[in-house]
Amino acid sequence: MVFFMQAGFAMLCAGSVRAKNAKNIMLKNLLDACGAAIGFWALGWGFAYGGQDPSKVTFIGDQDFFLSSGINDHKSWFFQFAFAATAATIVAGTVAERCTMIAYLCYSSFLTAFIYPVVAHAVWSQSGFLSSFAEDKIFDVGVVDFAGSGVVHLTGGCSALVAAIVLGPRIGRFYDDKGDKLQVPTDMPGHSASLQILGTFILWVGWYGFNPGSTLGIMYSGAAEVAALAAVTTTIAAASGCISALAIRYFAGPVGSRTYDLTAAQNGALGGLVAITAGCSVVQPWAAVPIGAVAGAVYLGASNLLLKLCIDDTVDAVPVHMANGIWGCIATGLFCDPKLHAVAYGAGVEGLFYGGGKLLAAEVCLVLFVIGWVSCLMGPFFMLLNKIGWFRVTIEEEEVGLDISKHGGSAYVLTEATASEKLEIVSGSSI
Amino acid sequence: MVFFMQAGFAMLCAGSVRAKNAKNIMLKNLLDACGAAIGFWALGWGFAYGGQDPSKVTFIGDQDFFLSSGINDHKSWFFQFAFAATAATIVAGTVAERCTMIAYLCYSSFLTAFIYPVVAHAVWSQSGFLSSFAEDKIFDVGVVDFAGSGVVHLTGGCSALVAAIVLGPRIGRFYDDKGDKLQVPTDMPGHSASLQILGTFILWVGWYGFNPGSTLGIMYSGAAEVAALAAVTTTIAAASGCISALAIRYFAGPVGSRTYDLTAAQNGALGGLVAITAGCSVVQPWAAVPIGAVAGAVYLGASNLLLKLCIDDTVDAVPVHMANGIWGCIATGLFCDPKLHAVAYGAGVEGLFYGGGKLLAAEVCLVLFVIGWVSCLMGPFFMLLNKIGWFRVTIEEEEVGLDISKHGGSAYVLTEATASEKLEIVSGSSI
Amino acid sequence: MVFFMQAGFAMLCAGSVRAKNAKNIMLKNLLDACGAAIGFWALGWGFAYGGQDPSKVTFIGDQDFFLSSGINDHKSWFFQFAFAATAATIVAGTVAERCTMIAYLCYSSFLTAFIYPVVAHAVWSQSGFLSSFAEDKIFDVGVVDFAGSGVVHLTGGCSALVAAIVLGPRIGRFYDDKGDKLQVPTDMPGHSASLQILGTFILWVGWYGFNPGSTLGIMYSGAAEVAALAAVTTTIAAASGCISALAIRYFAGPVGSRTYDLTAAQNGALGGLVAITAGCSVVQPWAAVPIGAVAGAVYLGASNLLLKLCIDDTVDAVPVHMANGIWGCIATGLFCDPKLHAVAYGAGVEGLFYGGGKLLAAEVCLVLFVIGWVSCLMGPFFMLLNKIGWFRVTIEEEEVGLDISKHGGSAYVLTEATASEKLEIVSGSSI
Repeated sequence: MVFFMQAGFAMLCAGSVRAKNAKNIMLKNLLDACGAAIGFWALGWGFAYGGQDPSKVTFIGDQDFFLSSGINDHKSWFFQFAFAATAATIVAGTVAERCTMIAYLCYSSFLTAFIYPVVAHAVWSQSGFLSSFAEDKIFDVGVVDFAGSGVVHLTGGCSALVAAIVLGPRIGRFYDDKGDKLQVPTDMPGHSASLQILGTFILWVGWYGFNPGSTLGIMYSGAAEVAALAAVTTTIAAASGCISALAIRYFAGPVGSRTYDLTAAQNGALGGLVAITAGCSVVQPWAAVPIGAVAGAVYLGASNLLLKLCIDDTVDAVPVHMANGIWGCIATGLFCDPKLHAVAYGAGVEGLFYGGGKLLAAEVCLVLFVIGWVSCLMGPFFMLLNKIGWFRVTIEEEEVGLDISKHGGSAYVLTEATASEKLEIVSGSSI
Repeated sequence: MVFFMQAGFAMLCAGSVRAKNAKNIMLKNLLDACGAAIGFWALGWGFAYGGQDPSKVTFIGDQDFFLSSGINDHKSWFFQFAFAATAATIVAGTVAERCTMIAYLCYSSFLTAFIYPVVAHAVWSQSGFLSSFAEDKIFDVGVVDFAGSGVVHLTGGCSALVAAIVLGPRIGRFYDDKGDKLQVPTDMPGHSASLQILGTFILWVGWYGFNPGSTLGIMYSGAAEVAALAAVTTTIAAASGCISALAIRYFAGPVGSRTYDLTAAQNGALGGLVAITAGCSVVQPWAAVPIGAVAGAVYLGASNLLLKLCIDDTVDAVPVHMANGIWGCIATGLFCDPKLHAVAYGAGVEGLFYGGGKLLAAEVCLVLFVIGWVSCLMGPFFMLLNKIGWFRVTIEEEEVGLDISKHGGSAYVLTEATASEKLEIVSGSSI
Repeated sequence: MVFFMQAGFAMLCAGSVRAKNAKNIMLKNLLDACGAAIGFWALGWGFAYGGQDPSKVTFIGDQDFFLSSGINDHKSWFFQFAFAATAATIVAGTVAERCTMIAYLCYSSFLTAFIYPVVAHAVWSQSGFLSSFAEDKIFDVGVVDFAGSGVVHLTGGCSALVAAIVLGPRIGRFYDDKGDKLQVPTDMPGHSASLQILGTFILWVGWYGFNPGSTLGIMYSGAAEVAALAAVTTTIAAASGCISALAIRYFAGPVGSRTYDLTAAQNGALGGLVAITAGCSVVQPWAAVPIGAVAGAVYLGASNLLLKLCIDDTVDAVPVHMANGIWGCIATGLFCDPKLHAVAYGAGVEGLFYGGGKLLAAEVCLVLFVIGWVSCLMGPFFMLLNKIGWFRVTIEEEEVGLDISKHGGSAYVLTEATASEKLEIVSGSSI
């Protein structure tokens, strides 16, 4: 079921880009799954979990590359592979419609085989300096990031932000032909709301694999109970995020021409899902309501901020995954119920609203670590790609669309006449 | 998996409406899930299952609102939430293309937080007057509605029928501009058969969550066996319904221009699924063949009846869910095998064809109760909404389509030229 | 989850045909599921598994038709039904856009109720002459075909090849109006890459039901471990096949106008999945890399061979399912690790690369048996259909498209004007 999220991202991204780039983004989504499988098998798993040992803290794993150890932990590998693929997929959406295939291949390999595994090692392995499973825990409590608000979504979202800054906006999005800034950013709506909503529903379904499913990693008698709680909090946070974002957008519109914004509703739901991911097993169902509601607002605020800063995020992945990844970690530090923490983690750590500040401090460390680690490595990496001219397609390719220029034809052939016209493939190629 | 049905309904409904209303119906489907989550958490669950006690019959639950009791039954909550969302979604399809968003929000909250929970309480809680789990069972046998032909589909379908009658047909469907009745109803085909079929398949898959999955609520050693039987009968009934409806429609056509009607096939399959839902765990695999075959005929008959009565059901949800919800309850009263009933319910009650009439009588009571309860409450409710002018969009909005008038633009942007043309948003708004 | 593959095939096929035949292929996909359910319940299951007995070898089962034995093995039935439906679906894609509905109904019944069950009986029942579960095993080892590279995919793919040869290519694909061979085959791209990719992802997800899920049939303590290994090898083979096919196609293109071919990537992934299906539980994760990589090449080679031979396979099902079905069986004979075979089958049989040739010999027997059995029966069967004029639609119907000529209208109605124009249904009908 966790793998099904790849289908969700593919449909969401495809629906969110213009029709002329649909094949391109879907190929990237397909390759995310493939690249992550190979990269995580060869290197990533070893860096993340190889040779873990609760009694010593290490920065990175150093064994079990190519699953060579023969230890039978294939179930965990499969789960972790799906997480790594998710982190890479987030970036693909943000830089859609203008990023080259070669840059894509470079960054997604780097991300899934090295950047992500180091974060996963720090938080989820028994040797991580932030881990709850190590003997020596940070602030004596360890970080709670049950299914990866920080490890997966913040890592992916932060990479996406860095990429969007270095890559620059799509042609005509914020600037006119002469390079002057437009009064109002040009709206570039995706070509199919149906695909977007299909993707959103698939992601929501897949999240039940991620959040309740993360209990599979923990072997103890209460796992079924924890999974059921996670399913409930996940549901309520998604609902709350959806309603919150829809309502805020509705009432923010001018009286008389208010609209019910489907995209806001959908991204609000996804934001709520991202935000509950860290704490889904340690917060009460009621806490999922404010967590989701704030997530809807966080998404809209971050989205507007990006527009103000002229940072172009094709599918709003940064507001959804990065901003709400941060909020999810913070929220866990606020709402963690010690009784539930005792069931899920065996320790009884308290969130701020239950009287203890240590967990919140640990969660802040997680956020700062991920942002620091990702931007210090991915920033120079993307700048290098840009410098050597591998990062962005040519202006002609961008304007005609990547499907015709790079993939042999349009994604849709609704009449045969149009088909044959479109098959005059644009010559000249960046990479 | 049960939540996945929401995706199925969204795709089925989206494909079944005209392109100009696709975003509207998808937003409603998304909000069904969200509203049901919040409403069922806050109120519905408490009304349905709060304070249940096998030794006393109550009309409605009165505890555990906001899941406050602390009893860890989160798995059942999640399952029941998905059922409630399904009941609400059924209505959205029927009134598509002409119902306002505010009316939608009102009725779906009312349905999921109150109407549906009372029915679920009556049939599935330990204190219900129709329940098989109460000590004092109706006619000494209690009602068998394993996964909700009556509780879910009849409740949703009956609400949909009442709504369609009060709301009236879409412009031009049965009457011309002057209000005269047309000789032949205008066909208003959905805009995408692909989305319809995708939705149908997703629903079929989701049904394996509902029907075999309903064994999760019953904790005993034979659960896996019952679930496997339910999967088999569910499969056969869907197949039988599909083939039956396709064949009847084919041979009903004039010789020489007979067509294989994809919509009939798809709704026949769904009708078969609805009809087997009540009895999937207590009928033999062979019985699923006639149950499905009759379901195909029931769907077509009910669909024609609606056309004759000039009741406009955009997605044929009333024939599929209400008519076959009734048939499913009756069929269980006919085909229930006492040996299988003993395994699933521990009692050995006989259907009419096995010699006992009590179960059939109980099933009829269920049908009458649901129809009475739903129409007595939803009827006045929808009439009130209509009276105050909140129920239906304006004529202009209906003609231009809800996506442009209420949601800021079309669902599809296949060429950029068209996109910019369509963005002249219609001014003036009903609500 | 295994049933979900039906949705995947429907979307993949729908996206791969021209828009004018979308409803036709989706109806066939829906009927595959329905026909297989009825046919496999009535006859197929009995032929495959009825009265199996490890101590005697039989060619075909002879009991338990209509699930009449009362033995509660409904879970296996459900799994096997999904396999049978898959075998039939493979054929539908290949002959799409030109095969009549009546021919479709005939061959799919024959295939699911008789042809496929005999193969399943031979390999998977306890009385099969190739079975690993019989007492007297072929070459003392029995065939390893864990989830059906040979039993399901080769059977379906070989039937598809025979059908494509008898049926002939689509009009204009290889020959011009005068019947002269074209210099270059006409490209007939599918109408929606989005549906294709959606279908591919759904199939990939469904494969996790097939491959790891096939352990459900084997009841022993190590099942979870075997299932996890199968999930890992399945993932890696799909990824390897995708990358391999994409890279080969890319570098085979002329320098300067190389393209990243989405269809190659998608079919490469599917080819990798087919190829790992036989051995997913008995090969090491590393072995999935070469198995998948070769699968990508096998798919491209077979696809080119079909083009050279002027055999028209609308969705490239023969290269994906037949060619890689063969490769999957062979690969299992090469890479089978005796340690893993001991866990999954309890015997410790060696593949060629581990020193033993018996398994490879057994796998070759499986391949030859399936090809012989299928072509000797399906060949005459299709020729008979062709002879009596039931196999192929008329030239007019093919040119105008099957949706308008046989299904009452187009699959898509994007503007209302176009809709009414298209509703002038073509008169005259083949069957």
